[in-house]
Amino acid sequence: MKALNLILAEAELELIPKEIAEQEVIKKHARKRGKKASELLLDSSLHYKAMRKLKDFRRRGRPDIVHITLLSILDSPLNREGKLRVYVHTRNNDCIFINPEVRLPRNYARFCGVIEKLFKEGEIKSSNKTLLEIKKMSIKELVEKICSDFIVVFDEKGKLEKIPEVANELKSYEKPCAIIGAFPHGSFKNDYSFADKAIAVYKEPLSAWSTASLLVNALYIL
Amino acid sequence: MKALNLILAEAELELIPKEIAEQEVIKKHARKRGKKASELLLDSSLHYKAMRKLKDFRRRGRPDIVHITLLSILDSPLNREGKLRVYVHTRNNDCIFINPEVRLPRNYARFCGVIEKLFKEGEIKSSNKTLLEIKKMSIKELVEKICSDFIVVFDEKGKLEKIPEVANELKSYEKPCAIIGAFPHGSFKNDYSFADKAIAVYKEPLSAWSTASLLVNALYIL
Repeated sequence: MKALNLILAEAELELIPKEIAEQEVIKKHARKRGKKASELLLDSSLHYKAMRKLKDFRRRGRPDIVHITLLSILDSPLNREGKLRVYVHTRNNDCIFINPEVRLPRNYARFCGVIEKLFKEGEIKSSNKTLLEIKKMSIKELVEKICSDFIVVFDEKGKLEKIPEVANELKSYEKPCAIIGAFPHGSFKNDYSFADKAIAVYKEPLSAWSTASLLVNALYIL
Repeated sequence: MKALNLILAEAELELIPKEIAEQEVIKKHARKRGKKASELLLDSSLHYKAMRKLKDFRRRGRPDIVHITLLSILDSPLNREGKLRVYVHTRNNDCIFINPEVRLPRNYARFCGVIEKLFKEGEIKSSNKTLLEIKKMSIKELVEKICSDFIVVFDEKGKLEKIPEVANELKSYEKPCAIIGAFPHGSFKNDYSFADKAIAVYKEPLSAWSTASLLVNALYIL
């Protein structure tokens, strides 16, 4: 294996949708942050009351899941060895390309600030290096761009396989791709029939960060 | 191995010290939160300006490290299988005993709220179960209480060993104990000569959560 392509799919990461931008709790938060409502990340811990009008409101607005998962895997030995490429795909088909060398803020509020800047400006650069870049792209287009030779979807409804077997199979390819859902609960909404297999690695649903760090650590250890 | 005892040691988790409670930035934050300054967690992302008067100010005020590390390991398969006991020891010798079944808030601000309540009330209960409990105890007293049969300190200055070897050695004991520093950088301040060995598992310093999840996943996988 040259490097694992890891996609955090259908992440609940989005700016505040127009339908709720005029609600009082949102306007208050925007004033406090000194930004327009449409420039703020939707965050269920802050905007839950205003979100009830949104479709799927129970799972939306979870930048925290992306934050914890990215911190968990970007500092891993596998990434430090140059063997990991991470992408975040969101419910609105925004795809974030992550430079493996990026050091994301450990603090959640600062992380949200960086992602809001990314949505606004399209990329985050530092001394001529692009650290984060965002592009409109469906999960299928992203996967085609990555040109993987083997694609596995981690899905609690998939066939139960042991993590060492999964890791060893992925390692036998040059550019394997793992797709992990970055939503709090429920099922994938897109069609993943393009994948080679759908598997579960534990008898119970695991959080995105547990699945991702289990996989990334297994690939390093084994 | 029955269960791994994992101590996050010298964590930079503390209430705002008296010396800086009267500074303007602190008083403003206390008013906003509707609490006394002495009831708030010290947080370098909010209080950095006021912290310059404190000894070791460059490493203090990091509840985020404890938060990310606990989320990373408490949702792991090893913990779900009942094979993990986690303790947080702080710079002020406050020790937090964590019920393996606790579900900590994913949101950072809410996590801080829970820890502030824990400092104030001494324990957090839910339907007659103690989920978190805090006691004054040095790291040595904590280790004596745990009664481990083998103690390893993860220290970047320790002897470099491969993680599978470390995991297999720990697994050969009934109640092994791993001590991982939960501070942002620098060295341990306490004396760990009571430990059986001090090791590093990677050629570069790793974050507390990377070391902890690497170890916890290795024990599950191998």
